[in-house]
Amino acid sequence: MAEEVVLLDFWASPFGIRVRIALAEKGIKYERREEDLRNKSGLLLQMNPVHKKIPVLIHNAKPICESLIQVQYIDEVWHDKAPLLPADPYKRATARFWADFVDKKIYEVGGKTWKTKGEEQARAQKEFMESLKLLEGELGDKAYFGGENLGYLDIALVSYYCWFHVYEKFGGFSIEAECPKLTAWAKRCMQKESVAKSVPDQQKVYEFALHLKKILGIE
Amino acid sequence: MAEEVVLLDFWASPFGIRVRIALAEKGIKYERREEDLRNKSGLLLQMNPVHKKIPVLIHNAKPICESLIQVQYIDEVWHDKAPLLPADPYKRATARFWADFVDKKIYEVGGKTWKTKGEEQARAQKEFMESLKLLEGELGDKAYFGGENLGYLDIALVSYYCWFHVYEKFGGFSIEAECPKLTAWAKRCMQKESVAKSVPDQQKVYEFALHLKKILGIE
Repeated sequence: MAEEVVLLDFWASPFGIRVRIALAEKGIKYERREEDLRNKSGLLLQMNPVHKKIPVLIHNAKPICESLIQVQYIDEVWHDKAPLLPADPYKRATARFWADFVDKKIYEVGGKTWKTKGEEQARAQKEFMESLKLLEGELGDKAYFGGENLGYLDIALVSYYCWFHVYEKFGGFSIEAECPKLTAWAKRCMQKESVAKSVPDQQKVYEFALHLKKILGIE
Repeated sequence: MAEEVVLLDFWASPFGIRVRIALAEKGIKYERREEDLRNKSGLLLQMNPVHKKIPVLIHNAKPICESLIQVQYIDEVWHDKAPLLPADPYKRATARFWADFVDKKIYEVGGKTWKTKGEEQARAQKEFMESLKLLEGELGDKAYFGGENLGYLDIALVSYYCWFHVYEKFGGFSIEAECPKLTAWAKRCMQKESVAKSVPDQQKVYEFALHLKKILGIE
């Protein structure tokens, strides 16, 4: 059977970016369909009736939802190339733990660093930087979280790189100054074609955040 | 090397219950250490410095945190007995999707059904029942979510069974009346020794919830 792979996506979504990188790492051809999140397609609602959210990976007409689950699915189906999860169960559990940490902290707290004001914003900025430092500690002196090669946790986190400028600009801090090793890691990831072609430009994301702030009335 | 397996646990925790069931399914001997959550042990803080939460599975002195990750780890390490995740990648993704749904909905919304009042409580009760109905739909006519045998999603959800009486008593609804197939499934799970010996008594959990309500000042 010819493989048919479709990704329902939104350009600035860290969740969508993860799936793009994983598919690129595996060399999978796919059709990417941009969704209008204020007017979601019938296909999106049909394929993800529970959460009604992008990204949805549709593989031979069957939907897979939730980005970290999609990345694991991609790794399991196309297992003969560019392994993303480590083979060792303990290392797998560790990668899953930190990817889960990214999901629990970076998205929500990161959002609060620029969507809130005053004390709430200050708290979020402090927590955000503490979270990044924990991740930097986990990286240590490795080239990638995955070791010598880009892996599951690298994909889970680097998907936020295009938002770093937003966090910095509205937060008034420098991620590079606070987390130099993590910044060097992100730049290293960006040198990979699979990442570079999947991650949008930081300035474009910043302009999108400005636009969102206007819509949300939090200028 | 002799296997040394320790579980830092709290008796009424659905998250801890999951790990107990998974270890029982695999026939793993382990030492269970009850934690005082208001005075956590040094070992807990050392083994889970990021979240400082139970359960922590300590396998040969190395910690694994987060219950669904622990269940996957147990399935991967002791893979020769009682497989918990399906072998097929699509079925694995589906099981992971619904287990993630349980984590996102049942714990938080379930808690709100008895910890809140008025409109917030009514909203939570409605959302809780809708979530259970979605899960019942996913179960369909299967004996277990895992098919013929208890699997990953069964473990993820049945861990809440001991809390059902709390939800019903404070919510003034009957899960059995609304979700008869799901209730039959839960009772089927409870007939398995691995589940029965891991899940505390509903009445005991109800008394614990009453006690918590007093402490939280929401009588």
